[in-house]
Amino acid sequence: MVQDIRVELTKNKRVKPDMKTVKFGKSFSDHMFLMNYEEGKGWFDPRIVPYGPVEMDMACMVFHYGQEIFEGMKAYRTSEGKVQLFRPTENIRRMAISGERLVMPAVDEDMFLAALKKLLEVDAEWVPSEEATSLYIRPFMIATDVGLGVHASKSYLFSIITCPVGSYYPEGLNPIKIMIESQDVRAVRGGTGIAKCGGNYAASLRASLLAEYKGYSQVLWLDGVERKYIEEVGSMNIMFKVNGEVLTPSLTGSVLAGITRKSCIELMKTWGIDVTERLITVDEIVEAAENGTLEEVWGTGTAAVVSPVGWLTYKDKTFEIGGGKIGTLTQKLYDGLTGIQWGKVPDTLGWTVPVEK
Amino acid sequence: MVQDIRVELTKNKRVKPDMKTVKFGKSFSDHMFLMNYEEGKGWFDPRIVPYGPVEMDMACMVFHYGQEIFEGMKAYRTSEGKVQLFRPTENIRRMAISGERLVMPAVDEDMFLAALKKLLEVDAEWVPSEEATSLYIRPFMIATDVGLGVHASKSYLFSIITCPVGSYYPEGLNPIKIMIESQDVRAVRGGTGIAKCGGNYAASLRASLLAEYKGYSQVLWLDGVERKYIEEVGSMNIMFKVNGEVLTPSLTGSVLAGITRKSCIELMKTWGIDVTERLITVDEIVEAAENGTLEEVWGTGTAAVVSPVGWLTYKDKTFEIGGGKIGTLTQKLYDGLTGIQWGKVPDTLGWTVPVEK
Ligand SMILES: Cc1ncc(COP(=O)(O)O)c(C=O)c1O
Ligand SMILES: Cc1ncc(COP(=O)(O)O)c(C=O)c1O
Repeated sequence: MVQDIRVELTKNKRVKPDMKTVKFGKSFSDHMFLMNYEEGKGWFDPRIVPYGPVEMDMACMVFHYGQEIFEGMKAYRTSEGKVQLFRPTENIRRMAISGERLVMPAVDEDMFLAALKKLLEVDAEWVPSEEATSLYIRPFMIATDVGLGVHASKSYLFSIITCPVGSYYPEGLNPIKIMIESQDVRAVRGGTGIAKCGGNYAASLRASLLAEYKGYSQVLWLDGVERKYIEEVGSMNIMFKVNGEVLTPSLTGSVLAGITRKSCIELMKTWGIDVTERLITVDEIVEAAENGTLEEVWGTGTAAVVSPVGWLTYKDKTFEIGGGKIGTLTQKLYDGLTGIQWGKVPDTLGWTVPVEK
Repeated sequence: MVQDIRVELTKNKRVKPDMKTVKFGKSFSDHMFLMNYEEGKGWFDPRIVPYGPVEMDMACMVFHYGQEIFEGMKAYRTSEGKVQLFRPTENIRRMAISGERLVMPAVDEDMFLAALKKLLEVDAEWVPSEEATSLYIRPFMIATDVGLGVHASKSYLFSIITCPVGSYYPEGLNPIKIMIESQDVRAVRGGTGIAKCGGNYAASLRASLLAEYKGYSQVLWLDGVERKYIEEVGSMNIMFKVNGEVLTPSLTGSVLAGITRKSCIELMKTWGIDVTERLITVDEIVEAAENGTLEEVWGTGTAAVVSPVGWLTYKDKTFEIGGGKIGTLTQKLYDGLTGIQWGKVPDTLGWTVPVEK
């Protein structure tokens, strides 16, 4: 059921960032969406209000027990000036799955979509039109019960905030260096890896920071049980082209089911390329790198879309992939997906959802 | 270094709860402690202010990436009316360990202790004097950077809030029912199990809720790798007396190093009882329960101190322990620890720290 959304427009418009220098996730749009939930009452008071701070009690559950989930998606401006979303229903459904793991209520699909569209209408001028830019959209939900007993909260705040972004990697679509992490663990089967929840990212910060100090963009995680299967990157899924075959780790329960991953698989299918989803050991990738059959490696995620990996480091050994250059398939996937997202190529798969205005 | 703490007293005293009916962690004292951190600047502006909401930007990192750690401790009122803390330095050090895992800054030990003492002086009247009551103290730290990139925050808020509490289990010191969880996982070696951070608790909510529906107090977690070693309970460590020997899971990297656990081990040592810390399989506990050698089981944690376990359920089979009655050693530990905490027996181990006033 779609409830009416109350709109309170800002009286103090925020300054728009320079899209050439804007940092990812630092400049927020004029408005945000908020909606509250209470057990027994359900969701209520959907509203769009000026972006700004919210008063929070220090005993709010979200500050103590990490009951928080989020999504990440984008709105794109097409060359005709229209604004469109990319597979928003996938994000809405994944958020419900995250909520199931963390015992948090789902937001009605139609209501969620209505909130997204309304917010984008109100802040339409925040969807940038410069090359390779978009409006990053962050729906999230936090536990708002005031109290310190370890229990699922009975009240929640659902919010959507947005920020105009350039390319995720300041260097642009250049191959990145990835370090395979063999110490810290991000998620484990039975844990919260399938959910997009705060705790997974908190667990990942130390390894990411150490990797960054050493000059790597991100960390590639191994499974938490045997520490030998490749799972995913900090904020991307990963794909390999080995000896002509495209491989990606299967969704075993501790990997996030990326929407870009799914879209890459489906897009390649239309190109006649079958992607093998299975358990992939780090050893076989190292072997392929050593014997020269590791042709391409790339990450997939909303922020960077498709990100070529030029160097993989495992236990202090670094392997260069494809001469540190962008692979043909990687480039084709990037062009294919971003082409649909920015409306440059026909959306034959029905992935985009237009936003009026 | 101990910085001066600014004190702003409340003008609107809060109503104190009835200590007979007060719920755990629901009624907060008049004041709270706050202190900010910024990279390059360190901790600044330590202050005690009226308990109340704080303005938070919706893009604050704590809402998205779960970078949050906490502690739980208590202040006790002795029969002479004095207020004392129990091993506060242990909590202060554990919080630094949690911070190390989540890349968050430590609070100077002396500063932390000064903050605790000052807050307790200001809110001394909130330390209740009724039998089995205490003032629960919740120090916690949250990431306050405003921004959506997945990175360790560069700014933090450290806070201490307090609330008068009765017994953690409303039924009093009665044996509880525990369900051994075989599906969900709370923590894994390499993950964040050794840290007291939000994500671990978020991961535990679903199993705890399901267990509660079935009439259990809490869940007993197995290790995330082999799912056969006993780890800990939702908010307690666990100890077993099998055939005269006291056993507790060793601190393998995914179990919280409980201060009550440590205190029980040290207290038993003074009684001539050696505690064996080792890997304990669920199978050997089931076997001991079946052949009648499982004499006592109890949980240890700040909230409940020592909590007798009367029934353990594993895969739909329930084992009654000690006829569902409190065991002799369990009772002796409870009396011994709470005796020291409430100043009823001499503190020969130097565990208590008096708070002036
Ligand atoms: C851990 C993790 N894996 C994978 C992804 C990729 O998912 P998607 O393609 O839906 O953006 C993300 C984030 O976006 C992520 O945070
Ligand atoms: C997961 C967990 N294990 C064990 C404990 C017991 O630790 P302590 O005795 O320090 O309170 C707690 C909490 O207090 C806990 O949250």
